[in-house]
Amino acid sequence: MIYMDNSATSHPKPYEVRRAVKRAYNKFYANPGRGSSKDAIRASAEVYSAREALGALVNTSAENIVFTYNATYALNMALYGVIKEGMTVAVDRFSHNSALRPLYALSKRGVKLRFLDSSIIRDSVIIDSFESLVRKEKIDVLVLNHTSNVTGKMSPVKRLSDICREFDVTLILDASQSIGSSEIDMKKLGVDILASSGHKGLYGVTGTGFLAVSDSYPSVIDPLISGGSGIFSLSHEMPNLLPERLEAGTLGMIGISSMRAGAEFVLRVGAGAIGAWERELQRKLVSELLNVKGVTVYNKDVNANSIVLFNVEGMSSSALADKLDKMGISGRAGYHCAPLAHELIGTNNPENDGAMRLSIGIFNTERECDKLVSAVNKISKF
Amino acid sequence: MIYMDNSATSHPKPYEVRRAVKRAYNKFYANPGRGSSKDAIRASAEVYSAREALGALVNTSAENIVFTYNATYALNMALYGVIKEGMTVAVDRFSHNSALRPLYALSKRGVKLRFLDSSIIRDSVIIDSFESLVRKEKIDVLVLNHTSNVTGKMSPVKRLSDICREFDVTLILDASQSIGSSEIDMKKLGVDILASSGHKGLYGVTGTGFLAVSDSYPSVIDPLISGGSGIFSLSHEMPNLLPERLEAGTLGMIGISSMRAGAEFVLRVGAGAIGAWERELQRKLVSELLNVKGVTVYNKDVNANSIVLFNVEGMSSSALADKLDKMGISGRAGYHCAPLAHELIGTNNPENDGAMRLSIGIFNTERECDKLVSAVNKISKF
Repeated sequence: MIYMDNSATSHPKPYEVRRAVKRAYNKFYANPGRGSSKDAIRASAEVYSAREALGALVNTSAENIVFTYNATYALNMALYGVIKEGMTVAVDRFSHNSALRPLYALSKRGVKLRFLDSSIIRDSVIIDSFESLVRKEKIDVLVLNHTSNVTGKMSPVKRLSDICREFDVTLILDASQSIGSSEIDMKKLGVDILASSGHKGLYGVTGTGFLAVSDSYPSVIDPLISGGSGIFSLSHEMPNLLPERLEAGTLGMIGISSMRAGAEFVLRVGAGAIGAWERELQRKLVSELLNVKGVTVYNKDVNANSIVLFNVEGMSSSALADKLDKMGISGRAGYHCAPLAHELIGTNNPENDGAMRLSIGIFNTERECDKLVSAVNKISKF
Repeated sequence: MIYMDNSATSHPKPYEVRRAVKRAYNKFYANPGRGSSKDAIRASAEVYSAREALGALVNTSAENIVFTYNATYALNMALYGVIKEGMTVAVDRFSHNSALRPLYALSKRGVKLRFLDSSIIRDSVIIDSFESLVRKEKIDVLVLNHTSNVTGKMSPVKRLSDICREFDVTLILDASQSIGSSEIDMKKLGVDILASSGHKGLYGVTGTGFLAVSDSYPSVIDPLISGGSGIFSLSHEMPNLLPERLEAGTLGMIGISSMRAGAEFVLRVGAGAIGAWERELQRKLVSELLNVKGVTVYNKDVNANSIVLFNVEGMSSSALADKLDKMGISGRAGYHCAPLAHELIGTNNPENDGAMRLSIGIFNTERECDKLVSAVNKISKF
């Protein structure tokens, strides 16, 4: 079995994660933040350690890490918490439906959306587009995908955030695909709010995500979801302080412990080193697939993080995925919940119906890449 | 160690749950509903089995089970999804902050709230209050707590739902405290939407909850959170069908598998039998604590599900909890995120600062109850 669907969820995971899941089940069974028993305090301490590990990873305070069910919840909470009626929001076309769909919903409530131009390859397109936009009208929020889950291309965050600072725009970054394989320093990058999944490059289990708020972000994020907070029970509203303000109800201990273990693995190995290996395999795969007759690789000129996006002539992407699956290779066909990106690439047509995505993880090997190329060779010959 | 905080989260759990967690970690690593690989399909099949088990438990279709991060998320999704501007909502005073706080938030957006009268003991009070309310003005939604997490008292759901049917009121039930220890048949009880946690009487791990929609509920619930749905990626909106409409982003496999195992345990042992044992221990504890000098039991005349709520004279509830914790007994002091219930009981005063709650689980024993009583005896003598 060759697993190359790490952009959907990571597999396998570092052994520390398995150990953390087992430990959480046995040791952190009490409800963290509810009550003062030794049990509950032990669970709360573990939650705090997880905040510290994630805070260290993205360079913000532990208190500014908010745990969520997944990246989608984190993005919805950031978008609904910051964007108010009458605001104008700039959006990256490489955004995932986890950002696009809440934005479309907000646009029905009096929020104006402005889609930025983009290129699969050149950074200048989105920078120029954003710059000319902010000079034309007041933009309140920029919603940016750090790394595309379709092409693997990374956005020029720093250059866009410089414009954000100049024109007082709040920057919300979706780091679901970049976390763990790129060094992310919210302070240096100038990111106000970062949303990420916990089960991809962080190696946590599924059902995990988080929101990180920059220490310098001056505003209060309104809660989308409210409920029991364990503190200030008599108040009609969620507490004013983070992380409690945005964490309603009981937190998932196994998920949080798994993210802690994953973040510690990434901190030890280094996100840069992990990304370097994934990019090396990506380049190898791309160059070899280009030699296969009938194969189109869409992100061949992209310095991509782990992703190879391709199709085989005369075959829908899902038929290709089925064939690869039968040969023991897991990837993902279709639109990857990012319709505008496929529009840009030109793969939203009836013949391809999206594209086949292979997404490489730290535990993939050169040998697996060889097997993959030989499998595509066989498929394309029929 | 005596664990009596099962209303916060269940502990220990049936051994099947541990097995399910391990199995999910090893076997259901792929992203369910994303892609068509054997891996992903195996994970999706497990998710469906979990829906079936929960659907069987509350008597609704598997498709009408929506997985959430916790009961709070489930309640928020139900409330925001159903209650629109201009509506009038009747609320049970025994409601938890997971229902109260989103309702207070909705009341700032043009939703009118009507709090029902309640008694700790007599059902007639809330029934009369609701009946006179619906005769006076149009009520759109009734939000009801099935079993109070403060007193253990169960609401007269069937009698209230009969009124709901007559006056066309949507009934949203919070079953977080009743699931697993009371038989819940949504059809027979006349419940439109049920929200519950997954880690209490269902014995799942923390970070689990679900929403169950009755097969006869005629309306579409608007999504509070939107994002990737795995299907219909090109659409600007969440799909129109359940459960996908309300499940944005990647589901948590370990949590879902643990709920499945817990639900199957409950179906096998029987929620009635589980509740009977818990009530037996509750009655024993109450009658023995009443003999301890200086102890006030607040729910002594209540046929309560598992809960014993009490204080010791001259001691705040949290001081009592600390003393019990030092003697190896876990419970929970304070307001239990249900401020209106403590108001009704009269425990929201500076001396008590809430009350001490012991909540019994299926694995508690008579011997543990004896030890608890002897511990309270020692504490009250100082």
